[in-house]
Amino acid sequence: MFDERIYNFSAGPSMLPLPVLQQAQKELLNCSGSGMSVMEMSHRSSSFDSIFQDTKGRLRKLLAVPEDYEILFLQGGATTQFSMVPLNLMGTTGKADYALTGHFSTKAYEEAQKYGVCSVACSSAETQHTTIPQQDELQLSPSAAYFHYCANNTIYGTEWNYVPQTGAVPLVCDMSSNILSKPIDVAKYGLIYAGAQKNMAPAGVTVVIIRKDLAGHAMEKTPVMLNYAVQIKGDSMHNTPPCWCIYMLGLVLQWLEQLGGLSEMEKINAEKAAVLYRVLDESKLFHGTAQPEARSRMNVTFRTGDKDLDALFVKEAANAGFSNLKGHRLVGGMRASIYNAMPIEGVHALADFMRKFEKEHI
Amino acid sequence: MFDERIYNFSAGPSMLPLPVLQQAQKELLNCSGSGMSVMEMSHRSSSFDSIFQDTKGRLRKLLAVPEDYEILFLQGGATTQFSMVPLNLMGTTGKADYALTGHFSTKAYEEAQKYGVCSVACSSAETQHTTIPQQDELQLSPSAAYFHYCANNTIYGTEWNYVPQTGAVPLVCDMSSNILSKPIDVAKYGLIYAGAQKNMAPAGVTVVIIRKDLAGHAMEKTPVMLNYAVQIKGDSMHNTPPCWCIYMLGLVLQWLEQLGGLSEMEKINAEKAAVLYRVLDESKLFHGTAQPEARSRMNVTFRTGDKDLDALFVKEAANAGFSNLKGHRLVGGMRASIYNAMPIEGVHALADFMRKFEKEHI
Repeated sequence: MFDERIYNFSAGPSMLPLPVLQQAQKELLNCSGSGMSVMEMSHRSSSFDSIFQDTKGRLRKLLAVPEDYEILFLQGGATTQFSMVPLNLMGTTGKADYALTGHFSTKAYEEAQKYGVCSVACSSAETQHTTIPQQDELQLSPSAAYFHYCANNTIYGTEWNYVPQTGAVPLVCDMSSNILSKPIDVAKYGLIYAGAQKNMAPAGVTVVIIRKDLAGHAMEKTPVMLNYAVQIKGDSMHNTPPCWCIYMLGLVLQWLEQLGGLSEMEKINAEKAAVLYRVLDESKLFHGTAQPEARSRMNVTFRTGDKDLDALFVKEAANAGFSNLKGHRLVGGMRASIYNAMPIEGVHALADFMRKFEKEHI
Repeated sequence: MFDERIYNFSAGPSMLPLPVLQQAQKELLNCSGSGMSVMEMSHRSSSFDSIFQDTKGRLRKLLAVPEDYEILFLQGGATTQFSMVPLNLMGTTGKADYALTGHFSTKAYEEAQKYGVCSVACSSAETQHTTIPQQDELQLSPSAAYFHYCANNTIYGTEWNYVPQTGAVPLVCDMSSNILSKPIDVAKYGLIYAGAQKNMAPAGVTVVIIRKDLAGHAMEKTPVMLNYAVQIKGDSMHNTPPCWCIYMLGLVLQWLEQLGGLSEMEKINAEKAAVLYRVLDESKLFHGTAQPEARSRMNVTFRTGDKDLDALFVKEAANAGFSNLKGHRLVGGMRASIYNAMPIEGVHALADFMRKFEKEHI
C-alpha cells in the first residue's frame, strides 16, 4: 500500500503527467461550467465538440501534420490497425512489405496475410530482435501497396533511429510506443497509427494520421467501422468516440506545449535514456539486451544473466516504489519503460537503486 | 456557465450516478494504495486484474448470466457489433432475420448484408417507427443463423415490451439503450451487446454477453479483434482493453447493487417514465410521439406540433438547467432520456417545468 504516487515503469498503460491527472480530477464533476463531467457529455454537444476540435488542432500543430492528412481518433488499439491497414490499403496492388523487428510487427504481418501477399522486407529474428536492419538491408518490392514497420519495439527495447526510404511506396508506421517522444516529419509517411496508452492518453483511443488520398479504396467486405473513408467522412464520429480518452489526450497535449513542444521532449527523453544506459554500460552486474545502435529511448531492457537475481531485483525495486520493472514474459529479464510522463527524477532514482543493488549483490 | 451539476437528458453519452463520479474523483491520483491512477495501471497487473475480474463478476451476478455464457468488454460501440455479429454468426447457414424498428436496427441490417442473406422479419417503417411489431407479425425463417433486434429505439422512443420467440434460432439483441434498466432472462438470448454510454459507463467499452457455443465459427477473413473466439480466449485482453471504462462500469455496478439491484432499478425507471408520460397524456400542448403500448422507459419523445415552439421549449429548458432535450435530427421535436442515473428528482423537476411552460404558451 502506497500513500504517495510511485514511479511506474510499466510498458503500457503507463504513467500520465501529474498535472494532467490533477486537472482531470479537478473538473471531474463539472467541466468548464457545463454542469457535467466530460464522461457525461453528448458527443454531439457543443461542449464536447470544442474539446474534440481543440485536441485535434493541438495534435496537428504539435506534430506539424500537413493539410492533406486527416487525424482520426479510433478504437480497438494497434491490433485493430493490423487488420484495418491491409483492408483499406492493400487493394491497389494486393501486395505489401513488412519489416519484422519484434513481436507486434510480426503480429501485424501475420494478420495482413489474410488480405493479400505480404513479403518480409527484413527481419531481426536472427539476432533475437536485438538489432534494427539498416536501409541497405531492406528488400523492397516496387509494386507493394505499402511498407509497414513498427518504430519502437517495446518487448526487445529497440527503436528505428532512421526513417526507411521506400520511394513511391507509402510508409505505414506503428508508432504506438514512441509517438510524441520527438518531432517527426509526417510528410514522409502515408499512414501513422498509435494506441494511446503509452505516450498519449489512457487506453481506449487509437490515433491514426492518414494521407487522405490513401482512403477510399477499402475491400468490399470491410466492416464499416474499419473503413478509413467512413471515419474521415464522420470526423471520427461515425458513432460515439471514446470521449474521455480524447479529452485526456487534449490535456496531455497542453502539458507537452507548456513543456516546450516535441524538440524539448526529445532532449529530455534522450537524457533520461542516457542515464539508464550509462548505468548499464558501467555495470558489472547488469547488461543491456539491445545492441547499442538499436537502443530504444522508451524501453530500456536489461538483465543480470541470473534469473533468480533478476526476480530479486524486480521484487526489491517494487517494494521501494519502482513498479512494473519485470521484462515481458517472452524475453524475461527487466524492462524500464520511460515514456514522456516518466520524470527524470524517477530515472535518476532508479539509476541510484540499480547501483545500490549492484554493490549489494556482486 | 453552471456552478452546480445540472439535469442532463442526453440520449448518450449521458448522466452517471453522482456517487460513482465522486468515487472516481477521490481515487484518481492513487487508486486503492497502488500509488497510481487506474488510467496508469498495466492491464496485466494484479491491481487492474482485480478491478477487471470484480467488474465482470458483479455484472454476471446482477444480470444472472448463466455459466455457459461469456462476458466480453470490447471496443468500437454497437456499430462494430453490426459487423461482428454476422462475421461470426452468419456462417452456419448464411442467412439471418432482422427486425427493423428504428434507425440503428436498420443500420445493423444494412451492414449485415455484406456478409449474408438478410431477411426483414418485421418493420415499423409504415408507422414511422412509432410502434413495435407483435409476436404474430414476425416473419421467421427457420434456417436463419440468428434473429436480430434492437430492444429500445432511442430516436423514436419505443421499446420492446416482450422478448421475441424464435424457436431454435438464436436471439441477438442490441441492448445499448436499456441494458441494466430491468432484470432480463439472459438464457433466452444467444448474444446480447450494448455500448456502455447510456446505462453502464463512459463511451469506450462495449459489453457483449455470448453463449459460448456460438463463438468459433467466424468467417475466414474476420479481423482478429472482431473474432469472438479470440476475445473469449484472451478474456477480452487480446490487446489492451479500455481499462478506465471497465473500472467506471465496476463503480456503476456497485451503485446498482447498493440501490437494490435490477428489480429495484426497474421500479424506479417505471415510476420515472410514468411521471413524464402522465404529463404528456394530460397536456393540451405536448404530445408523445410513440404509440402508448410501445413507449420506451428510457427515451420519452414528444413535441408540440409547432417547430418554433419546440425550439423555444428546448432553449428555455436549457437555460433552466435541463440540457439536451432536443430530439434527434431525423425526427425533430423533443426527447428526454431518463436512463438509470437520472434521479427521479430530475424527472419531477422537468415535469414541473413542462407544466409551467404549457401554462405560459397555450
